Amino acid sequence: MSSTAARPIRPIAVIGGTGPAGMGLALRWAHAGETIIIGSRDAQRAQAAAEAIQRKAGNQARVSGMENSAACSAADILMLTVPFEGQAALLKQLKNSMTPGSILIDATVPLAAAVGGRASRPLGVWQGSAAQQAAELVPHGVSVVAAFHNLSAELLNREEPLDCDVIVCSDDSDAAQLTRELAAKIPGVRAIDGGRLENARIVENITALLIGLNIRHKGHAGIRITGLPPAAYR
Amino acid sequence: MSSTAARPIRPIAVIGGTGPAGMGLALRWAHAGETIIIGSRDAQRAQAAAEAIQRKAGNQARVSGMENSAACSAADILMLTVPFEGQAALLKQLKNSMTPGSILIDATVPLAAAVGGRASRPLGVWQGSAAQQAAELVPHGVSVVAAFHNLSAELLNREEPLDCDVIVCSDDSDAAQLTRELAAKIPGVRAIDGGRLENARIVENITALLIGLNIRHKGHAGIRITGLPPAAYR
Repeated sequence: MSSTAARPIRPIAVIGGTGPAGMGLALRWAHAGETIIIGSRDAQRAQAAAEAIQRKAGNQARVSGMENSAACSAADILMLTVPFEGQAALLKQLKNSMTPGSILIDATVPLAAAVGGRASRPLGVWQGSAAQQAAELVPHGVSVVAAFHNLSAELLNREEPLDCDVIVCSDDSDAAQLTRELAAKIPGVRAIDGGRLENARIVENITALLIGLNIRHKGHAGIRITGLPPAAYR
Repeated sequence: MSSTAARPIRPIAVIGGTGPAGMGLALRWAHAGETIIIGSRDAQRAQAAAEAIQRKAGNQARVSGMENSAACSAADILMLTVPFEGQAALLKQLKNSMTPGSILIDATVPLAAAVGGRASRPLGVWQGSAAQQAAELVPHGVSVVAAFHNLSAELLNREEPLDCDVIVCSDDSDAAQLTRELAAKIPGVRAIDGGRLENARIVENITALLIGLNIRHKGHAGIRITGLPPAAYR
């Protein structure tokens, strides 16, 4: 972790970490030397997922599994990778387990699939985006960052570098920078400052578009932002 | 136009063609051998713009300028490049000048700048998108295609190839295919079938995100879609 030498080695809790997106992010970060806690409703399921990641990432990897609220208490970087239909209830349930000063990185996409519709259509969220809904539900002192919506879970779980940029939106610039550093640890990923948290509504919706492209063209679509100066990518 | 040999050489009317996006598209298509009619509220302004494009594109280029409704009547491919605040009124005014069987390609982006807000924030459109609003306003028999929202007008007006994909959305698959062929005539552009017209709401909003990135990072942002099989790009 040479690029973040000033940062203490804090674990990352991947809440909802037994799903494909959570497993993929955990795998990539375990490979990069991060300490990972997989969170799940079921502690045994979390431990089984952690062992599976450990097997793929090798002996040096530091991966454990816990029930979600224990995972939450044990970390101050919380990566949320749950379907939209479970996001609000889970955040309410975890509220008392979050430490002030923590960062919640939200990758939730409000897809119509949450209410029996198509995964290629976004739902409108009153607050503007799933990330803004999360910001309303976390305790005071917890910063919300929106990121990682547009990465293919399928490709995250493979070995090859990705071909996708991660647009990071937050109202807390330190939390956003830390998230961009975490994104850049995934081979092939470039992190881009996407501005305030309110912009998450566009980034979330892009995922619905990508899902539609995947269905139509049989692929694992991602996006790259072109035309920005090199300093924009970090 | 070897790739579209079956297509008669029909002019493309660029409505609102004296703005930077219209001028840029007209220039690129004139270079590619298309016959272009620049439309403007003011016929003289249209002619001056046409002459400017002709000078840049060279003697072989076929570019003329007309008042918008005359341009509309003289073409059956209509490229609409106007600010959102002018779109609905202009379409109502041009309704009687459109020939059934025509294609209206809409690149309108509903930015909050239209009502004095920021260009980095989209407006909500009752119909779902500016393109769906257009579809409500054109006469029966005119097909609407949404495309070209994400191309930088600045870069279109230069000589270099672009580094951006064009996502094409329409409920008329023939019109969408013709539009993808037109997009692919712009050097560096790949055209992608983005599905039904309703998906334009996401593609339009991406422009607001790109404008925000341009402001934040001082660039001319575009997007590339990665991870699709080669056949998806055409």
